[in-house]
Amino acid sequence: MNQRVEKLQSWMKENEVEVSFITSSENVFYLSGYFTNPHERLLALVVFQQEEPFLVCPAMEVHDAKRSGWVNEIIGYSDIENPWEMIQRSIQKRINSVSKTAIEKEHMNVERYEQLSSIFPKAAFISAEEKLRLLRMIKDEKELKIIEEACALADYAVEFGASEIKEGKTELDVLNAVEYALKQKGVTEMSFATMVLTGANAASPHGNPGLTKIKKGDLVLFDLGVVVDRYCSDITRTVAYGDINDKQKEIYDTVLKAQIAAIEASKPGVTAAEVDLTARRIIADSGYGEYFPHRLGHGLGISVHEYPSMTETNQLVIEEGMVYTIEPGIYVPEVAGVRIEDDIYITANGAKVLTKFPKELQIIK
Amino acid sequence: MNQRVEKLQSWMKENEVEVSFITSSENVFYLSGYFTNPHERLLALVVFQQEEPFLVCPAMEVHDAKRSGWVNEIIGYSDIENPWEMIQRSIQKRINSVSKTAIEKEHMNVERYEQLSSIFPKAAFISAEEKLRLLRMIKDEKELKIIEEACALADYAVEFGASEIKEGKTELDVLNAVEYALKQKGVTEMSFATMVLTGANAASPHGNPGLTKIKKGDLVLFDLGVVVDRYCSDITRTVAYGDINDKQKEIYDTVLKAQIAAIEASKPGVTAAEVDLTARRIIADSGYGEYFPHRLGHGLGISVHEYPSMTETNQLVIEEGMVYTIEPGIYVPEVAGVRIEDDIYITANGAKVLTKFPKELQIIK
Repeated sequence: MNQRVEKLQSWMKENEVEVSFITSSENVFYLSGYFTNPHERLLALVVFQQEEPFLVCPAMEVHDAKRSGWVNEIIGYSDIENPWEMIQRSIQKRINSVSKTAIEKEHMNVERYEQLSSIFPKAAFISAEEKLRLLRMIKDEKELKIIEEACALADYAVEFGASEIKEGKTELDVLNAVEYALKQKGVTEMSFATMVLTGANAASPHGNPGLTKIKKGDLVLFDLGVVVDRYCSDITRTVAYGDINDKQKEIYDTVLKAQIAAIEASKPGVTAAEVDLTARRIIADSGYGEYFPHRLGHGLGISVHEYPSMTETNQLVIEEGMVYTIEPGIYVPEVAGVRIEDDIYITANGAKVLTKFPKELQIIK
Repeated sequence: MNQRVEKLQSWMKENEVEVSFITSSENVFYLSGYFTNPHERLLALVVFQQEEPFLVCPAMEVHDAKRSGWVNEIIGYSDIENPWEMIQRSIQKRINSVSKTAIEKEHMNVERYEQLSSIFPKAAFISAEEKLRLLRMIKDEKELKIIEEACALADYAVEFGASEIKEGKTELDVLNAVEYALKQKGVTEMSFATMVLTGANAASPHGNPGLTKIKKGDLVLFDLGVVVDRYCSDITRTVAYGDINDKQKEIYDTVLKAQIAAIEASKPGVTAAEVDLTARRIIADSGYGEYFPHRLGHGLGISVHEYPSMTETNQLVIEEGMVYTIEPGIYVPEVAGVRIEDDIYITANGAKVLTKFPKELQIIK
């Protein structure tokens, strides 16, 4: 059995969980190596303390699942078969009674929960999510390498985007050019909807790219990420188009100072809260506290948002192997919006910065 | 109160449901006019039989929700607040006890279900999904107009794509060119991952666009849709690159005949099954029955797949105001894959076809 499944099994033994019924694409991929988006159809990885685990997927995907390296049993069901009956039989072949089942309570829907409850009428249901988040939070070398590739493509995207800024071009013009350039490099999926925001749009933490034209004196904010082998990167850079005013510069410098300080504060042993507060205090001390309305950052990996959550209240201790973003921002309506975001990897000695596009204010002429 | 919420309230009264707790982005949008993808954060529209409904969303989205036209109460919660306590207070201000609650059982996760169950410890939970599907199935004039716009852009996409076909270009070349052209027209979202498939790839109902080069004598299948103001279109056309052989032509003609017949059969009073079977029989009679492995079509609107499901067993009666696809296909491995798909709107007199790109075989020279 692979190490990830073994770690889940150890946790199951400690917690007297006889069956884990894992249904999210991300966690099934993490544990089995097989990724699929089954849409409304059921996908499940069923894990036991000792017995052979099995995978459940639509019949037409069984071949792909095998090809991805899954060597244990696979239950493939067609659109006219009831997968729950097949699942019940496969479980009963392995174990007699179930008193505790682990599921993903944030992922499993109520309909499936009712199905499972009828298969295990006496079982208590606990959440496997926290454990899986903690497992996924610490990246191995192979994962780090993939994320580094994704970060290099994100760097390229920002560099290309900055070079596309010209008088009269719209946010969408630049965005499209960036995504087209990435596709030419073989990128087929972005981590989330790419943002290219300018002027007043960038000054809203939830602006959407549109037909606003970029003009001299504007700040232009890029927030984007690239998916490589199912792992996400996530970068934000804010560049200046032509000369900007002193207020914009002050805001930029404040964000940058906070961002660098938070990276320096990131090392094994400190808490996520301390890292967040390192940046937050610098921004508050400069008088912009109320204009930094979101957390400092988030872990990333198979999901673009995962553990650790970098908030001012999270007492989670930073550990070697974590990958997370540091992305303070200041958004003053009608004045300026600036956010600077890196992805970092925690080593024994502190942060290794994975996104490398320059952070000194880039002025596009 | 808007008409859609009123229809839900009538259903609640009939079924003695005191509270509907609606959480999917699509249904919240349908009922409130506000669309957001809240990711892992809670979004909810809480509807009562008589009392004022309220919306729950992240604090930073309250402004957008108001701007979208929602005039009733909004509960905005920050990342460090517990929305469930706020929800409980707002519900208790309106009603005293709850014995039946409607939720989306296919959308709501177990964690939220447990939260709600603790707020309403004595309540039974029933599903609101079927009712919302039936409401959304009948489109009003405003919805129709938006879908027509989305269809016009889908027509343009196929026309543009066909004009891009040239010796040596790959499926992905043509696909990227199509999406780029759409973005230049302000399109920011496709209904689903665009398909451009050629040769053997098109002959699999589950092919993926790749680096296969288009060559003379190939059929090229386009399947794509455009999102306009949150509504989807969905079109498929199969065109010929250069001269094709008699077998390919026969397959094309069979699909087209079946497709046209199913559109003609679409009118108020017939069942979805009858419409599906109209096409299915024509294909079977031509000897290709086993090569048409999917349903005839599906409703579309805010979701690209909604009611009615056009299967050979669905006894649902077609009504004025429905919008659905008619998309028979024949896929003979290594020989040809042809699918022709229109979006239609049901009027008192029969089908109005919303997608207008020609269906006579287009031969690209």
